[in-house]
Amino acid sequence: MKATPVLEIFGPTIQGEGMVIGRKTMFVRTGGCDYRCSWCDSAFTWDGSQKAAAMSAEAIYDKLKETGGEAFNHVTISGGNPAMHPGLGDLVELLQQHGIETAIETQGSIWNEWVKEIDEVTVSPKPPSSLMKTDWPRLDRYMEELQPRRDKALSLKVVVFDENDLKYAIDVHERYPDVTMYLQVGNDDTATPQVEKLRDHLLAKYEWLTEKVLQEERLNGVRVLPQLHTLLWGNKQGV
Amino acid sequence: MKATPVLEIFGPTIQGEGMVIGRKTMFVRTGGCDYRCSWCDSAFTWDGSQKAAAMSAEAIYDKLKETGGEAFNHVTISGGNPAMHPGLGDLVELLQQHGIETAIETQGSIWNEWVKEIDEVTVSPKPPSSLMKTDWPRLDRYMEELQPRRDKALSLKVVVFDENDLKYAIDVHERYPDVTMYLQVGNDDTATPQVEKLRDHLLAKYEWLTEKVLQEERLNGVRVLPQLHTLLWGNKQGV
Ligand code: SF4
Ligand code: SF4
Repeated sequence: MKATPVLEIFGPTIQGEGMVIGRKTMFVRTGGCDYRCSWCDSAFTWDGSQKAAAMSAEAIYDKLKETGGEAFNHVTISGGNPAMHPGLGDLVELLQQHGIETAIETQGSIWNEWVKEIDEVTVSPKPPSSLMKTDWPRLDRYMEELQPRRDKALSLKVVVFDENDLKYAIDVHERYPDVTMYLQVGNDDTATPQVEKLRDHLLAKYEWLTEKVLQEERLNGVRVLPQLHTLLWGNKQGV
Repeated sequence: MKATPVLEIFGPTIQGEGMVIGRKTMFVRTGGCDYRCSWCDSAFTWDGSQKAAAMSAEAIYDKLKETGGEAFNHVTISGGNPAMHPGLGDLVELLQQHGIETAIETQGSIWNEWVKEIDEVTVSPKPPSSLMKTDWPRLDRYMEELQPRRDKALSLKVVVFDENDLKYAIDVHERYPDVTMYLQVGNDDTATPQVEKLRDHLLAKYEWLTEKVLQEERLNGVRVLPQLHTLLWGNKQGV
């Protein structure tokens, strides 16, 4: 039995971003990340500020049912980088056995076979503002592994803070033109407790990003989205 | 040559709602509707307040290119009820020939064969608060026509203003359980020019709808979304 470090299990709530936006889902947030993005909005998963519990697939499943009851049929596995953990393969299988769909988001740096079994995979390579460097050949192999899956969905997501990030997003889109691409406004104020102020600020940034995309012929096929949970609940954790 | 009454052609902008949310798209808004929803947010398409131009498919296409240039590859056909107009079949064909994808939203009351050719069809039956009555056998036939399409997407969307509408949404979801369903917050203030006030009001309503859905076991598979363009630009027409 392979245990997985888990930081929080919560929901049901609404998936606030990306390809599954608006979907009612539970969240399992794992600890640990091979990246250190400058603007990471879940740094508590790797900076030592919160302690993870080592949990088996069965224990995670039990906790999901205890928390969400019968009011969900979808689970989002989030991090950190959840694709680091081999033990999650058992969880995905267990959820499938119970007819529960799964989604994951990962930067595409570490491969585990079970990622293939996830219904909705979002690969989110990190733009220059993160201060991380993309290993392109590795990302190519990641996308190759995921592209031939039947009845399962794949998307790319790039968080955009500035013009440089936007250039990076264009590179990603041109490299994988057949994969649906989401652009997301970066939240540059992950500390403020003031929801209304944050809301107006982020919608102004969303409008900026929208305008850029509308003018850019190389981004005709993309989708631009805000983070709905941040608009609703600000920077609160566990919602 | 069958002409279609067109009220506005604009874009590129962002699709603010439903299954194509966030996608960069052009809009063609047709005149005329067989419904008279109490809260219609595009009553100008049928109440005589604005005059439609009779346009051929070619004229619509030329106007799209004149307005959007090379900065789009997706067109949303909107209304009114666009499915009323037989002449749009030629437009859809013309757009396909140019590699441009199409989306439509219709209440599912009037069938035209060309609807089958649309890449993303949103069928949006109207809940009790609209004061319209759903013709269920007719809607059944509509859904049957659209379900076997390959490589094309179908969704249902119900706008929810109150508890009664939510009950209606559950009925729709249980009647067509295999079709992805979107719930959307109704905009009950289509007149105010104050964007910030409207924004906070609509997000409060979105939170209310979200809470309801999260508790409701019969709505496990649905997606709940706000209208992004209204959050950004309020009640302005043509954005
Ligand atoms: S990859 Fe994600 S979790 Fe890891 S540091 Fe970057 S933003 Fe944070
Ligand atoms: S079906 Fe749509 S366009 Fe027609 S009256 Fe109702 S809301 Fe308005």
